[in-house]
Amino acid sequence: MNRIPRIYKNIDSELDFILIHNGPEPMLDLSFFYATGLYNGLFEGSYLFMYPDGRGEIVTSVLEEQSASRATLPVSVFSTGAERKEMLESRMKGAKRIGINASGLTVGALNSIKEFNPDAEYIDIGKAIDKARMIKDSEELEIMRKAAQIASEVGDLIRDFVKPGMKEYEVAAEIVYQMQRRGATGPAFETISSTGPNTAEPHYTSGTRTIQEGDFFLYDYGARYRKYNSDITRTIVIGRATEEQKRMYEVVLDAQLSAIDAIHAGVNAKDIHNIAAEIIDKSPYKGRFIHSLGHELGLATHDSVGFSPANDMVVEKNMVITVEPGVYLPGFGGVRIEDDIVVTAEGCEVITTPKKDFFEVL
Amino acid sequence: MNRIPRIYKNIDSELDFILIHNGPEPMLDLSFFYATGLYNGLFEGSYLFMYPDGRGEIVTSVLEEQSASRATLPVSVFSTGAERKEMLESRMKGAKRIGINASGLTVGALNSIKEFNPDAEYIDIGKAIDKARMIKDSEELEIMRKAAQIASEVGDLIRDFVKPGMKEYEVAAEIVYQMQRRGATGPAFETISSTGPNTAEPHYTSGTRTIQEGDFFLYDYGARYRKYNSDITRTIVIGRATEEQKRMYEVVLDAQLSAIDAIHAGVNAKDIHNIAAEIIDKSPYKGRFIHSLGHELGLATHDSVGFSPANDMVVEKNMVITVEPGVYLPGFGGVRIEDDIVVTAEGCEVITTPKKDFFEVL
Repeated sequence: MNRIPRIYKNIDSELDFILIHNGPEPMLDLSFFYATGLYNGLFEGSYLFMYPDGRGEIVTSVLEEQSASRATLPVSVFSTGAERKEMLESRMKGAKRIGINASGLTVGALNSIKEFNPDAEYIDIGKAIDKARMIKDSEELEIMRKAAQIASEVGDLIRDFVKPGMKEYEVAAEIVYQMQRRGATGPAFETISSTGPNTAEPHYTSGTRTIQEGDFFLYDYGARYRKYNSDITRTIVIGRATEEQKRMYEVVLDAQLSAIDAIHAGVNAKDIHNIAAEIIDKSPYKGRFIHSLGHELGLATHDSVGFSPANDMVVEKNMVITVEPGVYLPGFGGVRIEDDIVVTAEGCEVITTPKKDFFEVL
Repeated sequence: MNRIPRIYKNIDSELDFILIHNGPEPMLDLSFFYATGLYNGLFEGSYLFMYPDGRGEIVTSVLEEQSASRATLPVSVFSTGAERKEMLESRMKGAKRIGINASGLTVGALNSIKEFNPDAEYIDIGKAIDKARMIKDSEELEIMRKAAQIASEVGDLIRDFVKPGMKEYEVAAEIVYQMQRRGATGPAFETISSTGPNTAEPHYTSGTRTIQEGDFFLYDYGARYRKYNSDITRTIVIGRATEEQKRMYEVVLDAQLSAIDAIHAGVNAKDIHNIAAEIIDKSPYKGRFIHSLGHELGLATHDSVGFSPANDMVVEKNMVITVEPGVYLPGFGGVRIEDDIVVTAEGCEVITTPKKDFFEVL
């Protein structure tokens, strides 16, 4: 796989090459994996040269030699720091304009790269990479459907698994286990397994609280498969629900379904957010939807771009975005319902499929 | 918890403040969590101001308000981009010298920070943070012992769990599950569950290969607990071992135990690497130990610093470092044995305890 031409398509200015540096964890530049299509190995401290004619080259350490052998791009391997220096200097010598990905490169890594060629101009072409990564190709969609399918199967299973008396973290463990049993390499992010009043905190993960009758149980989780992520939230009630719980759920579900109905290529991202926000703001939960409706999904689980009130972006075919309205009442609890969608010409395809009818664990 | 004075202890130059920006995943600056002691929440897009007099302040979004309420430092919360801008501008106004952590800050984030104060000088004080983070305090050691204990219990259990016919990824799933059942928030990194010829590839993770009689089975895994990590490797043999397998194991174990024996505060890091390397290079596996003996451990699982041949560093009390020699024969397999140690005045404390006598799954 070589996605380099897709990146250059979005670049006007003349460059000698783009240089991606993939740092040590957690400072990974996921664009390295996007451009190369590699999905095994971490490639910490590896470099990717991307040339305007579509050629590319990976420069990596001997530790990654076998993982890199799966690459379709040529690979050069260094064993020592001196070899690494020689390889970079010879490739960077004489270059005048070098593209970098500013949001995936640390200040420290850029400084060390500049030592190999202090005279070049370093130009942030991150937007060109982001734009390419936003529109998924057929191979990416196939992988993401698999990540979505793994998580979807587990979503249904958890409905039957959760019982009063369990601890939050025990359910989180079960979710991750069932995803890995189905081929996920791990969780897409730290699993949220939240109960009772904790559900009012959107970024709570999980703790030792015991699940009780009358609780909301909110689980927000995803599978990582070949480095791509899925992202699902479901909220159920432990035991008989109160009228208030049921009403909260129905408002959020209505907001989610209405937003999904309105998605298609050509629509403005913020308008989709506003459809959900208006439904919530017309309900008794006005002002309690305190985050964006959804974020882009792929190699990262971005919080920045997607269906947000500030995002004046035209939605395009084959973007993958989450749709996740929620309402949060501090002290009482919260409801969030989240699915992942692929934008199509006429609408969208919802690729996450766990049941989302109102559910009581009885 | 406020570790700001520990960072300033390592800084000579005059600063108005240090500004940490914690990016969106994966570009997290773990120093944010070090300095604040916060261990719940991701705090994506949050800021930490650290002042020379030891005061600090967290500037974060309303989404993190409840997580941040656990902080001992003051917290300011923004709901909108405009509020965020106002908060940062008012705090940065007039500052002349601002410290940054270049290895934890992206070029893009630094550029956006500079917009709030383009005239200040931005000075990389990352080394001061690294130095503080290297020496663990009693609270950190307590958390790390717990992370080590969780993973150690699971290490012993896996000896009895692994059977021929299982798939690599099934064992990886079990390892993560058993750690999360014991209170880990997740795996420290993608679990390595490697069999047969795959064990010759140090950075192989896991796949669909079926475990067979005669295989090496190598598992390299760790628990994340309150954001701190443990890191263990064990290698066992499925069925009766060959003489070659047994010999490889004994050489690696000898190298590991000899290195551990030599560790104490005041010793040079590269000398510890060399003790292990010399034992291997005197064996039939000369040249087949192709990585550093160990890396620092804590909030990150660094590959850069530790017991490496290039690291001319004096080892100090309360550093936590891995000791993990290995030998790798492409096509045949590899053996690695890894434990985590805390440096003490007279020696070291091995905090990971799974059995490491030569073991055959019979």
